Amino acid sequence: MSGDPRALTRVLLDLCRSRKLTIATAESCTGGLVAGALTEIPGSSEVLDRGFVTYSNEAKQSMLGVPQTTLTTFGAVSKETAIAMAIGALEATEVDVAVAITGIAGPGGATPGKPVGLVHFAAASRDGRIMHREQRFGAIGRNTVRQRSVVEALRMLLELVRGPKPAAKLRPAESASRLRAARTARRTAVKRPVSSRSKPKPRKS
Amino acid sequence: MSGDPRALTRVLLDLCRSRKLTIATAESCTGGLVAGALTEIPGSSEVLDRGFVTYSNEAKQSMLGVPQTTLTTFGAVSKETAIAMAIGALEATEVDVAVAITGIAGPGGATPGKPVGLVHFAAASRDGRIMHREQRFGAIGRNTVRQRSVVEALRMLLELVRGPKPAAKLRPAESASRLRAARTARRTAVKRPVSSRSKPKPRKS
Repeated sequence: MSGDPRALTRVLLDLCRSRKLTIATAESCTGGLVAGALTEIPGSSEVLDRGFVTYSNEAKQSMLGVPQTTLTTFGAVSKETAIAMAIGALEATEVDVAVAITGIAGPGGATPGKPVGLVHFAAASRDGRIMHREQRFGAIGRNTVRQRSVVEALRMLLELVRGPKPAAKLRPAESASRLRAARTARRTAVKRPVSSRSKPKPRKS
Repeated sequence: MSGDPRALTRVLLDLCRSRKLTIATAESCTGGLVAGALTEIPGSSEVLDRGFVTYSNEAKQSMLGVPQTTLTTFGAVSKETAIAMAIGALEATEVDVAVAITGIAGPGGATPGKPVGLVHFAAASRDGRIMHREQRFGAIGRNTVRQRSVVEALRMLLELVRGPKPAAKLRPAESASRLRAARTARRTAVKRPVSSRSKPKPRKS
């Protein structure tokens, strides 16, 4: 898969448009760059509804509902916080898929077991699928950590939007168990928030 | 003043740190790039609390409290919406200053009287000062409109943080009236939200 964020974004946006899916972003260490990459492409307003740049822990709690216990127990840079951010973005909006990024871009901020370059990613979809990934980019520079994190976040969104691969050429007896194994771990579906409003119609921008 | 966003950001962050001021961003056409520019600098987590990427009108309403009547009467790209976004960002957070950007980056989206390249900016501070600016960059390309908008937003934040210029070498009788004239238009101060929480301590990132 391409590592060019612009090419990735185009493929992602085209797929979302064809499937009528909308996106929200929840960013910490990338600080808005994933939303920035998505909105670089004309017509992205049909797909990107909004982005949360939750740089402080307070913002992660109040904007995305990340529990304080998650932050104190596992830390802001953790699998648990990334997943809570992605689910929180779904719960706070009416979008179909959300991606979350939290990491240590450096040069400071490292703690024992959490070196500079550690980034946790999560992506969640309205149908209940949740993906998590951890990257240890190393001390490759703040800017490079952030740029590579943008690419990883876009890739995860693309994988989530593409959905589970169809089990081609399987005999009927095999297909059920193999399909299950191929799927990303599922949790209960995240309900859209109760709202009298219709699905948002992002404006042209 | 420099047009280099990185140099501008450094000056802005240094000044905010020395004055213990925090920032929030509310972005539409820049799609997260102002927050992205601020977080490019190590240590920015002491200053940037959070960013709102309110790409859809629905996001402007629910995240920033922009009234639907403002959006329908004046449009998403208007002085009124920009100011409502900046004030909304202050009201939704505990930051000291907020900046808002809404515009038509192009190539589509132009309407009669609102050409491609039209961008409205607003900056608001907790002490009640509000600035508005309108730029008509023209059809210089989506990317250039967005990049120049980032610089303009950073400049406005810097002006707001620097505050009114002191009236040097004025005789006492003159100073009161001339200081008043030099000030940016004031409105009533925006109160911090009622909260039992202390001021957020952004984490290192």
